[in-house]
Amino acid sequence: MIDSSFKHPIQKLNAGTIESTEDWLAVEEPLEIRISFLNEQGQQVMKPLSVTMRTPSAGQDIELACGFLLTEGIIHDKQDIQKALQLDDDVVLIILASSVRPDMHRLERHFYTSSSCGVCGKTSIDAVKTICPDQHLSTNFNSVLPSVIYNLPERLNESQNTFAATGGLHASAIFNTDGKLLLLREDVGRHNALDKLIGATLLENTFSLQNKILLLSGRASFELIQKATMAGIYFVCAVGAPSNLAVQLAAERNMTLIGFLRGGRFNIYCGAGRIMMKELAI
Amino acid sequence: MIDSSFKHPIQKLNAGTIESTEDWLAVEEPLEIRISFLNEQGQQVMKPLSVTMRTPSAGQDIELACGFLLTEGIIHDKQDIQKALQLDDDVVLIILASSVRPDMHRLERHFYTSSSCGVCGKTSIDAVKTICPDQHLSTNFNSVLPSVIYNLPERLNESQNTFAATGGLHASAIFNTDGKLLLLREDVGRHNALDKLIGATLLENTFSLQNKILLLSGRASFELIQKATMAGIYFVCAVGAPSNLAVQLAAERNMTLIGFLRGGRFNIYCGAGRIMMKELAI
Repeated sequence: MIDSSFKHPIQKLNAGTIESTEDWLAVEEPLEIRISFLNEQGQQVMKPLSVTMRTPSAGQDIELACGFLLTEGIIHDKQDIQKALQLDDDVVLIILASSVRPDMHRLERHFYTSSSCGVCGKTSIDAVKTICPDQHLSTNFNSVLPSVIYNLPERLNESQNTFAATGGLHASAIFNTDGKLLLLREDVGRHNALDKLIGATLLENTFSLQNKILLLSGRASFELIQKATMAGIYFVCAVGAPSNLAVQLAAERNMTLIGFLRGGRFNIYCGAGRIMMKELAI
Repeated sequence: MIDSSFKHPIQKLNAGTIESTEDWLAVEEPLEIRISFLNEQGQQVMKPLSVTMRTPSAGQDIELACGFLLTEGIIHDKQDIQKALQLDDDVVLIILASSVRPDMHRLERHFYTSSSCGVCGKTSIDAVKTICPDQHLSTNFNSVLPSVIYNLPERLNESQNTFAATGGLHASAIFNTDGKLLLLREDVGRHNALDKLIGATLLENTFSLQNKILLLSGRASFELIQKATMAGIYFVCAVGAPSNLAVQLAAERNMTLIGFLRGGRFNIYCGAGRIMMKELAI
């Protein structure tokens, strides 16, 4: 049984004061949805259909799997489900009624490829570590003043004028350690905004991301932290909340992760050493 | 050249007044990322790698594709890209340098399946229409009072206490047309919260979704509207902004779509006929 949230030690900075406390994190873990059905030759076959990063909650994995099958057009009512089984914490198997013959060709075409599934929690953390060697772990980083961090969302808002009208865009932005905005990208998809930003930096080759601050306009999911670490970013601030898996990966990668950066306050989830605490009245 | 935003006629309801005006919508369109590379036999091959729902913006599709390749570990620097081509509005081709040999096995394993890629804009709208026959289009629906709609987010907040601590969860909730909360599900992924809600309704078989109101705690993307229409939902309210493709699908499916439902006001993007306007001082 996995919990939906758990406590993580943080440092809370608010109007020049610092407090060591705890914060509840939303849990994000992979769920694999498998289906079993009769194929055209009358054989019972099993196919893994989807891996999604979800918040575990008692009984709701089966709801999630059944809802997914319905909204993807594979089943149409409850009679299409012969049995729904929780195989383990992170795997659900839905055995379809013998009358249901899923169109595997359509499925393969339609479920085609997205990094935003976040792939697979712990497996992915290992994969990231393999792909992104540890010698890239940054040790020298200019410390950042809390006053610089407080002001980042305002700097971002000032530059988002062209898109502010829609209210429908996520933003990713790169700042230097003095709080100067260097690059901004926006998109309806938060992972796209970050990929655009990283791609632009790669193509323009104008600066390294190692000694910069990344600001995310929303929440910090595992996937976004994964992308940031792949790009050699070591300082991430999010206006919203991080998930547990985001914090875990950030800590393993020696990253500074700040969340709830808004209204003149923020929480440090890991990597507090890069923040110049002497500015604070402790 | 596709625009990043465009105007859509709306009705804006605010403290009992109604105004016909226009709203800027963030554009959401599919982008296919293809790569071309030398395979183990020394042949130049091309593979479609990913389809993502993104906001088009001049020049940024190539940034997006290059950032995606970097953050997925396929390329590591600019020298790994031989050429980057915009094949048409919705297709980008990245020709990898001859020294880059992507591990197709890893790619296929890692990019495996997610509905959250949103599949393919117009193609998907057609697919939804095929799978979800038009006879399901609801014609009889109890009209909803604006005062009921204004209060939905507060009803949702009252029930989100257990998860409010994390600040990191999306919610989907079903209400009857009198504004009574019937079912609520939460998740770090907005598509998961909706799938859980729809799956629970399917499994419990306690009520039909046809004559109910769906409330989304965030933005209304194409994918969420697609899921709602597959489940036979005809009245969707979002606390955040809808995308252009969400509005387009909602309108084609005869759905009522409300956005920016917060602070005692909301915008009607389509299907105004299900809202009891006589309550309003026009």
